[in-house]
Amino acid sequence: MLGNFTYHNPTKLYFGKGSLDGLNEELPKYGKNVLLVYGGGSVKKNGIYDKVVAILKANGKSIYEDGGVMPNPTVEKLNEGIERARAAKADLILAVGGGSVCDYAKAVSVSVHCADDAWDKYFIRFDDVSCDVVPVGCVLTMVGTGSEMNGGAVITNHAQKLKIGHVFGDNVFPKFSILDPEFTYTLPKYQMISGIYDIMSHILEQYFSGTDDNTSDYIMEGLLRSLIHSANIAVDDPTDYEARSNIMWIATWALNTLVAKGKTTDWMVHMLGQAVAAHTDATHGMTLAAVTMPYYRYILPYGTAKFARYAVNVWDIDPDGKTEEQIALDGLIEMEKWMKKIGLIMNITELGASKAMLDGMVKSTLVMDGGYKVMTERDIRAVLEASF
Amino acid sequence: MLGNFTYHNPTKLYFGKGSLDGLNEELPKYGKNVLLVYGGGSVKKNGIYDKVVAILKANGKSIYEDGGVMPNPTVEKLNEGIERARAAKADLILAVGGGSVCDYAKAVSVSVHCADDAWDKYFIRFDDVSCDVVPVGCVLTMVGTGSEMNGGAVITNHAQKLKIGHVFGDNVFPKFSILDPEFTYTLPKYQMISGIYDIMSHILEQYFSGTDDNTSDYIMEGLLRSLIHSANIAVDDPTDYEARSNIMWIATWALNTLVAKGKTTDWMVHMLGQAVAAHTDATHGMTLAAVTMPYYRYILPYGTAKFARYAVNVWDIDPDGKTEEQIALDGLIEMEKWMKKIGLIMNITELGASKAMLDGMVKSTLVMDGGYKVMTERDIRAVLEASF
Repeated sequence: MLGNFTYHNPTKLYFGKGSLDGLNEELPKYGKNVLLVYGGGSVKKNGIYDKVVAILKANGKSIYEDGGVMPNPTVEKLNEGIERARAAKADLILAVGGGSVCDYAKAVSVSVHCADDAWDKYFIRFDDVSCDVVPVGCVLTMVGTGSEMNGGAVITNHAQKLKIGHVFGDNVFPKFSILDPEFTYTLPKYQMISGIYDIMSHILEQYFSGTDDNTSDYIMEGLLRSLIHSANIAVDDPTDYEARSNIMWIATWALNTLVAKGKTTDWMVHMLGQAVAAHTDATHGMTLAAVTMPYYRYILPYGTAKFARYAVNVWDIDPDGKTEEQIALDGLIEMEKWMKKIGLIMNITELGASKAMLDGMVKSTLVMDGGYKVMTERDIRAVLEASF
Repeated sequence: MLGNFTYHNPTKLYFGKGSLDGLNEELPKYGKNVLLVYGGGSVKKNGIYDKVVAILKANGKSIYEDGGVMPNPTVEKLNEGIERARAAKADLILAVGGGSVCDYAKAVSVSVHCADDAWDKYFIRFDDVSCDVVPVGCVLTMVGTGSEMNGGAVITNHAQKLKIGHVFGDNVFPKFSILDPEFTYTLPKYQMISGIYDIMSHILEQYFSGTDDNTSDYIMEGLLRSLIHSANIAVDDPTDYEARSNIMWIATWALNTLVAKGKTTDWMVHMLGQAVAAHTDATHGMTLAAVTMPYYRYILPYGTAKFARYAVNVWDIDPDGKTEEQIALDGLIEMEKWMKKIGLIMNITELGASKAMLDGMVKSTLVMDGGYKVMTERDIRAVLEASF
């Protein structure tokens, strides 16, 4: 690895069946007022909400509610959450849900003690955090985003047709996260598959960058092989604990900063997918899946060696007697077959996108410069056109 | 992964060329008195000592010296270091050197404010830490032990013919570590190769355990492939920055608790190697290399499936038309060839062991129960006999 970096990830994880008990270790470290953040109510149906509330009460906490966080948390909801946290004088924000809920909790946490407009400060100007941060803990009920062990927070502004992520520093990482694979069992299969592809995309966004020999790439090949193996099992049997626990663990390590070390990283699949989501409000992982093949086929000529390595080391493509380009293409063909097999949506039409949205989506796509090609507006248009 | 666990690794790492500058970020966090710990004086010859002292002085620190830490730190040296730290009223222990120096610093750090005899408390009774811990920082000049990001400390008691490690909790992990791959260039080749095998053994001790499907095993296969690749380059050119930086990073992740998650782990190669070292004072990595093949051949029948997986996924053994046992054996043959090629010592005779020491070494070998076979005294004797 040729790049310099620092690594610091202070989040404490409690992993496995019954790991919600970890709350009893963590709660005494914080003050009395807990802002309890959750989504559309599935945690009430599956009983996780009641379990969390019981532990909060047993630890003498005052609970302030902030439910209704949507899958793509909006700037309006963020502003509401900031007000709720201020009114509660929150000592701890406890997020119970998936990555969106955990993301949202972090976005609130950096804004409570800040006079600036949260959207402008963090998602337009990308300012550093300059005020006190309210500690955040996450009880994860859906995997994919890695939000449980990083500083990421993605917020959507429908008025501006923008879905933007801010990657905060380790002072904003959750202080602790509870990862019980059984909590993910009740998730609808569509959401599970979407989460699995979100994980895969996180890894690939980091893998497809750089030409140096980097240990991070070897670690990512291991994570990808484990993910593919466990995804195949989970799609057939969503209550296979071993598979679901591996998927949960891979999700965390795919996006907790480790595998990016020494690399530039790309993230254009996310930029394209987020542009699609800003116009359709479609599920995050599915938007990534729908733009992946058009994008990777488009950039393959600029990073052929890495795509060929990916084909051999992840998809077991036999390289004998083939050109590097053919090996690389065979890898993408194998990947595409697998994506269809597990049930991913492979085009943006099915996600509600229409040609009338094309100009807007092109405009909403942020350009990153760490991958194998810096995309022009024409490149972005070509990839999105091929994604219908 | 079927096991439950917690994960928390608060050590901050500064990685890359010039990362010693990270000291300027860290030092202001601690009080004035710094106990500067180092080994036999190579850090004075290669100039690292002077650089560290200059930064300490620029940060207004009072420096108290504790040099002369030996490759296998002794209980006598440990007791001396505890007295020095007490006399200095140390606010920070800064270790500059390899894993032994960092290990030693941690063993001192948990004993300074403790009335008990350090050896009895931590290395015989394996007590938890019950007193204040002096913060430790490490500037690494030799890689292998992973001591820079874990709670391990190995101390040798020559009078009792025992070399024993205590794995402390995250309150004893270094607060920060400086990892500059260029600091490892001046290390003699014998030490570099020994360190490389120490890293490999750390990974294998954790890999060869369990029969469940565990993401940790996939990560370890990635680490092993990267290690073998970079070791081959570094053996030919020890100043290849890319290879040395990968090796340094792999060493950290091989033993900072991540890849053990969800696994039982074995550690019998280390128990055997440490018994050899307690009688010969031979270099750690070489003692591990010398007992590895006899041990793995001995336990192969009890974990054949995992050895076969190792052969295919790490050593690219073609499994076609072979029994599982043959695949497994072919993997070990390939590994043995590679070990000889990079210059590892493959028997304990060359390390100074004699048959007269056999009874003593058998007796000094601690038995662990996480691998594929719990070793009896007869098993241990057979493996050590085959290691001459």
